[in-house]
Amino acid sequence: MTMIKDRINALRRQMVQLGWDAAVIVGEDPHNSEYTPLRWCQREFISGFTGSAGVVVVTMDHAGLWTDSRYWIQAARELEGSGIELHRMVSVENTDWIEWIGQKMAHGIVGIDGLCMSAALAERLAKVCTVVSKPDYLDAIWPDRPLLPQGKVWIHEDSFAGRSRADKLSWLRTELAGMGCTCMLVSCLDEIAWLLNIRSSDVDYCPFVISFALVAPDCVHLFAEISKFDETPDGTVLHNYADLGRFIEGMDVQGRILADFSSLNFETAKALEKTFGRENVVSMPSPVILAKAVKNETEIEGFRKAYIQDGIVQTRFFMWLETQVTSGCRVTESDASDKLHELRAAMPDFLDESFETISAYGANSALPHYSTVRGKDAVLEPHGLYLNDSGAHYKYGTTDITRTVPLGPCTDLEKEDYTIDLKAMIDLGMAIFPAGTPGCRLDAVARRPLWQTMRNFGHGTGHGVGNVLSVHEGPQSIRQNLKDQPLLPGMITSNEPGIYREGFHGIRHENMILCKSAGNNEFGQWLAFETLTRTYIDTAPVLVSLLDREELEWLNAFNLKVTADICPFLEKSEAEWLKNKTRPL
Amino acid sequence: MTMIKDRINALRRQMVQLGWDAAVIVGEDPHNSEYTPLRWCQREFISGFTGSAGVVVVTMDHAGLWTDSRYWIQAARELEGSGIELHRMVSVENTDWIEWIGQKMAHGIVGIDGLCMSAALAERLAKVCTVVSKPDYLDAIWPDRPLLPQGKVWIHEDSFAGRSRADKLSWLRTELAGMGCTCMLVSCLDEIAWLLNIRSSDVDYCPFVISFALVAPDCVHLFAEISKFDETPDGTVLHNYADLGRFIEGMDVQGRILADFSSLNFETAKALEKTFGRENVVSMPSPVILAKAVKNETEIEGFRKAYIQDGIVQTRFFMWLETQVTSGCRVTESDASDKLHELRAAMPDFLDESFETISAYGANSALPHYSTVRGKDAVLEPHGLYLNDSGAHYKYGTTDITRTVPLGPCTDLEKEDYTIDLKAMIDLGMAIFPAGTPGCRLDAVARRPLWQTMRNFGHGTGHGVGNVLSVHEGPQSIRQNLKDQPLLPGMITSNEPGIYREGFHGIRHENMILCKSAGNNEFGQWLAFETLTRTYIDTAPVLVSLLDREELEWLNAFNLKVTADICPFLEKSEAEWLKNKTRPL
Repeated sequence: MTMIKDRINALRRQMVQLGWDAAVIVGEDPHNSEYTPLRWCQREFISGFTGSAGVVVVTMDHAGLWTDSRYWIQAARELEGSGIELHRMVSVENTDWIEWIGQKMAHGIVGIDGLCMSAALAERLAKVCTVVSKPDYLDAIWPDRPLLPQGKVWIHEDSFAGRSRADKLSWLRTELAGMGCTCMLVSCLDEIAWLLNIRSSDVDYCPFVISFALVAPDCVHLFAEISKFDETPDGTVLHNYADLGRFIEGMDVQGRILADFSSLNFETAKALEKTFGRENVVSMPSPVILAKAVKNETEIEGFRKAYIQDGIVQTRFFMWLETQVTSGCRVTESDASDKLHELRAAMPDFLDESFETISAYGANSALPHYSTVRGKDAVLEPHGLYLNDSGAHYKYGTTDITRTVPLGPCTDLEKEDYTIDLKAMIDLGMAIFPAGTPGCRLDAVARRPLWQTMRNFGHGTGHGVGNVLSVHEGPQSIRQNLKDQPLLPGMITSNEPGIYREGFHGIRHENMILCKSAGNNEFGQWLAFETLTRTYIDTAPVLVSLLDREELEWLNAFNLKVTADICPFLEKSEAEWLKNKTRPL
Repeated sequence: MTMIKDRINALRRQMVQLGWDAAVIVGEDPHNSEYTPLRWCQREFISGFTGSAGVVVVTMDHAGLWTDSRYWIQAARELEGSGIELHRMVSVENTDWIEWIGQKMAHGIVGIDGLCMSAALAERLAKVCTVVSKPDYLDAIWPDRPLLPQGKVWIHEDSFAGRSRADKLSWLRTELAGMGCTCMLVSCLDEIAWLLNIRSSDVDYCPFVISFALVAPDCVHLFAEISKFDETPDGTVLHNYADLGRFIEGMDVQGRILADFSSLNFETAKALEKTFGRENVVSMPSPVILAKAVKNETEIEGFRKAYIQDGIVQTRFFMWLETQVTSGCRVTESDASDKLHELRAAMPDFLDESFETISAYGANSALPHYSTVRGKDAVLEPHGLYLNDSGAHYKYGTTDITRTVPLGPCTDLEKEDYTIDLKAMIDLGMAIFPAGTPGCRLDAVARRPLWQTMRNFGHGTGHGVGNVLSVHEGPQSIRQNLKDQPLLPGMITSNEPGIYREGFHGIRHENMILCKSAGNNEFGQWLAFETLTRTYIDTAPVLVSLLDREELEWLNAFNLKVTADICPFLEKSEAEWLKNKTRPL
């Protein structure tokens, strides 16, 4: 903890030099990313806190971390002895730390790294104090600060993307014209990767290229580590990542520029306003977000193929697991995770995992943020339930799947929860609904079987999935929060209700569902889902009496379909095992 | 149509005298009421248009009516020959007429009756022109303009209200203090009636007293027709209705005043701001709205009793109807309506109908705004479905119920629609859901059986119901529109899914449901509904194979409960008939 104390002291010396009364470190990267590349893990550097949400405020006589209830226990442990005080916030949306600054140092000078704070947040902070932005100021006290990742850039082929870069750019320029804009600054990494059909390995699990893209009428100015490119992508001009600000400053301005201020960082927003004039910077949701979410036929075919790959992998995995555990071999949660990785990595077209595998046995499955750590993980026993939530990027599609499987006899409550949660996933998978329905209105269709038996779960029911991009993407979702984005044909969303009983077991069933037209009639236009997942559902714990006729028919038909699609790719013994697992109920 | 032309001309002469370039008549009353008392039917007076939504704009060379698609056909017919042009708006929320004024007479002087336009709307209008308000200006050209209604005021007894006026006022004053206010202007008629436990017959179907209530720290200043009161209600000081403006002007101001500008008229809002200063007028949703919606135990008991009364009435009605129609007697929709009224009016404690009865046979039931008009109404035949949507105010509660009943053999499609719509009502009635759930999230639970068979309906699923007040009240609802008001224990809401096939038949089943606690468990707090309605459901058209086990059990249990509760009050022959109708499926 001396190290953290030293860093705080170094920061205070820097603050004196800079004339700051306080420094605020929110822990964002310049692109509003879900996963923060090492270079921008500033909150962890200064505090030692490793959670994914929190704000550090350092004044001359106080250092504090504000974080929400998910992290109270972890933060208290990680901050111990650092001299940093834990301020407990009720919700991640709260900004108690802004009020705190307002009270403690109204009109004081507060320093930020404006590249690493959203424009919206910096503006709220500026209401209670004087905000001074100095990009990368922590460099001075962080000698071994990680550089930008140097992994090579590759092209996401048109045969996987379904649309060429030229086609996407032409579409975007037409959109911009319709919005009265001549150019656009794209700052979110998944949007840039989608728009330019480029990928790299800069961010864990998300094959993004750390960059900014300034879409001009004649070309795209791409700001990134130039050495990462073997050749310049058609239609782009490469610039150094650090040159964005200077480039904007020197621009010969014509017309208006679009930028999505809900995700744009403060420093870049200021630069745009200075060069273009505030009235010529149009802040609107990026049109790329919706275009990216609605998959084209090529992408949909790619997803179908990816789920067959994953179905093969998971059949092998669960067969191996059953054999090991029932034969008395010692298998830990980490062993299982490793085996699954080994099987996936052996598949043709596998690129990477799409997120960190959750491999959890028994009571561990009930922990909402369970992370499998070797040495601290459980040994699998031949009874009860094992939960595995994992996914992969294949060249043509991204998977995300959860299966909960029995490792032997289950309790009545395990079976009941297993079946009721399955009803929820099936009911949403079977849902038909009018065009225009937002996900928040469908959420109750999934939850109804749980609600009727007074069960529930605290997370969303479904999130969008990117195509060899982030496994979590918007704008659609299926969850409680009221949000009016309708589900549209071509959107691919997860379907993952769960039931968690602390100290006992956790169950989650997760399929991936594609929104499709279900035809028109006198009552309007109708939509429905096609389930893309091709991993069997274990029927051993199912209490048939709890299923409706339609649910039972769906389950049998699903397992039949999985078997038909997967068996041609399996060894004979594997196929036999799978057929045995999927015998109709 | 000469009459309408004469009125428009008289208005134009008045506009010249007043120096107005245009006059706008929106057709609201000073209280933002759902039903407009005759005195304020200004839009109908000036245009002849009788629809419930529309705006008339008269300039020196143009007279126009803006209305939405529900009224295009009716308006075209009613305006014919009047010289008033019909401007078609896509939705009732549109304000195309404001844009029209902005284009035709930017900076012109536009006259309004500021008592009859909401402050919010007048402010939007004031952005495109100069607004001049002259209350009651139409008096000058409307010699026989109706006066305020003179019906007597009566007291809604504490034994029905469950809370005394003194108790409600004490609660409200505490609420006001909490909001930093010393007084409140209550302008909505149902809020005043609830707060002061007073009723009258000023407004059709809604037993309100036309008035304003200024809640001061020591008393309530009530502005109404004084002659309507036999005695001054305790805790109030009576003033003439017309004296509100002058009273506000002369007030000795201390502290801040609360007023709900979403419903307050422009003239009164201006008066408050002038006297109190804009910074001392707090516009917030009235706390009375939520308090009124959450019924107390006495009110709930009153509702239960009212639904038993209505159950008796409706059993007699449907028995009479069946006998008449099957014996070949000629019965029109109006005859049926009259008979139902006669049976209701004969019940002890009956006060009035709570809205105009919809009595519709066959294809008429499919029309969304069907109004039964003698001479133009259908004759009931011994086949197909008859829909009756009606309700009453009893001294202790208000009813609203729809039953669709077979008058003889039904088609397969009628039976299918009848059963599927019944599933929807039953599913919502059986719903269990977490505390905090808003109605818009439950809406899909009711619609799911319809959606799964690609059926739907265009209206909301449920609305709140007042206690001897308006049959439609907020703030809760169960409908598509995203609105975050949770359903709370004590709220009484309708449950009325429908299926309408133009040219064929319309089906609606409507019960009234009370939100109640369903207990707590490790997953949180749970709510459910108690169905208050005690009118049997005809099972003859039910296709049992389409019902789930739980739905069938619910239906049989409901009819059994109705029979048990109603039979003690019926003649022997009536009881026999009901028992026969409610034999379990």
